[in-house]
Amino acid sequence: MRFTKMHGLGNDFIVIEAEKSELSPEDYSRTAIKLCDRHFGIGGDGLVIVGKDRELDVFMRIFNPDGSEPEMCGNAIRCVSKFVWERGLVSTTRISVNTLAGPRYPEVILKNGEVEKVRVDMGEPILERSLIPMLGSPGKVVGEELDTTAGRFRITAVSMGNPHCVVFVDEFSSVPVSEWGPVLENHPVFPSRTNVEFAKIEDENTVSMRVWERGAGETLACGTGACATLVASYLNDLTGRRATVRLKGGELIIEWDPDNNHVYMTGEAKEVFTGEVDLRKL
Amino acid sequence: MRFTKMHGLGNDFIVIEAEKSELSPEDYSRTAIKLCDRHFGIGGDGLVIVGKDRELDVFMRIFNPDGSEPEMCGNAIRCVSKFVWERGLVSTTRISVNTLAGPRYPEVILKNGEVEKVRVDMGEPILERSLIPMLGSPGKVVGEELDTTAGRFRITAVSMGNPHCVVFVDEFSSVPVSEWGPVLENHPVFPSRTNVEFAKIEDENTVSMRVWERGAGETLACGTGACATLVASYLNDLTGRRATVRLKGGELIIEWDPDNNHVYMTGEAKEVFTGEVDLRKL
Repeated sequence: MRFTKMHGLGNDFIVIEAEKSELSPEDYSRTAIKLCDRHFGIGGDGLVIVGKDRELDVFMRIFNPDGSEPEMCGNAIRCVSKFVWERGLVSTTRISVNTLAGPRYPEVILKNGEVEKVRVDMGEPILERSLIPMLGSPGKVVGEELDTTAGRFRITAVSMGNPHCVVFVDEFSSVPVSEWGPVLENHPVFPSRTNVEFAKIEDENTVSMRVWERGAGETLACGTGACATLVASYLNDLTGRRATVRLKGGELIIEWDPDNNHVYMTGEAKEVFTGEVDLRKL
Repeated sequence: MRFTKMHGLGNDFIVIEAEKSELSPEDYSRTAIKLCDRHFGIGGDGLVIVGKDRELDVFMRIFNPDGSEPEMCGNAIRCVSKFVWERGLVSTTRISVNTLAGPRYPEVILKNGEVEKVRVDMGEPILERSLIPMLGSPGKVVGEELDTTAGRFRITAVSMGNPHCVVFVDEFSSVPVSEWGPVLENHPVFPSRTNVEFAKIEDENTVSMRVWERGAGETLACGTGACATLVASYLNDLTGRRATVRLKGGELIIEWDPDNNHVYMTGEAKEVFTGEVDLRKL
């Protein structure tokens, strides 16, 4: 079976074209577990299946290394956009993608005929507490105190189709991400658990962040997390509506458009290699 | 550039044929650093270069993810044997391989025409202290006490072309491998640093072990480490001269032949996928 290995800011994916693969949808989850293994398989943060959609240009589905299926992934959708453009599955630079979190509209930005970056309309942030989802009285969760077993945090909660809990910090050196991350991820106030972002304001146009992903631990980058962080930064009067977000794996430009309330993410997607794997031998 | 991804007990390698690659030998080290990266590259415990040798059948060179070049690797040589047999670089099942640790003589064991296992003559263990190399008075190092910053250990030192420090333990649950490993690896008594094996005797024919590899940290398996462990087990009267060594990534059968003093290792090698990578884009 043919596959392509890609990454967005080091968040790396095995990308497979549904029509050209020998897989049926019921195989996706267990195939992801095998293929994502970094020693016995191909290795990746996820298996991404793309193909022609019945309503939109293409669909994408993502499967984690544990076989679970997240709603959306901002780094994966940039990879998917580059993939479907370069392989001719779409003929316009603006692409409609069907995802579990609803339709998304990325745009490939070309330079000398090659995809340099991808700008993704990530939709509107969801700020209403019950829709994050987070327990408590109605309203937004902006700079709210939360008591945990690791102490008291001041959190801002944003859903970008998946839940995020953003905590602003002064210095990363004093942040034990692998200790605080799971405490916040699994806090009973988040019934679907949550992703966690530790963000440091560099200036009004720049935010650095480290991300603890639900079910995955600390990762090099998280696109929806970067969006949630910019939204949280603006809501807390720490940045404007547009900022460069620096992650371990690279940079993203995040914009929150005041006109349509949508968040746009612009960043790279890279193809690393193509390969051929015999699933029967794994 | 074409490559093949293989593994021996989960110890995984990017295998490249020297003559068919665009690399010159001075590129190997920095290419290994790029390609072994598991998020931005192909991902692997090492880059292995194989090709026709001037004196023996083939040569192999291995480069770690940090660009350093180990003398030999027992899991890699099984992969190399399968690779050169299946690609017709050799025509006999007994193969002579030039390595930095000297010549090695693996034998592919076929089943229905396919390589089922590889038996490798790993040569004679080196037991003389100065040749491990280890500082101190001449003689073997068998069950000797060593004081470290993590406490006192009883160690047996064996070189299989590369240095190993074997520590027998009663239970793995009480062994903090990632704490003790680097303490022993970098102990000043080992001028070239050392690999570290924590071994538990299951019965006189079975040893379980966890390995801390010099420059790599804990890995799923280490072939020379398994050999060193069997030798150490026999020298300490804990097993016979033949035992199954169970590692995280799978099993090896290790035999220490009393007639010629050679150590033989038998185990699997698996091809996972083949790929094509454009080095200029990494």
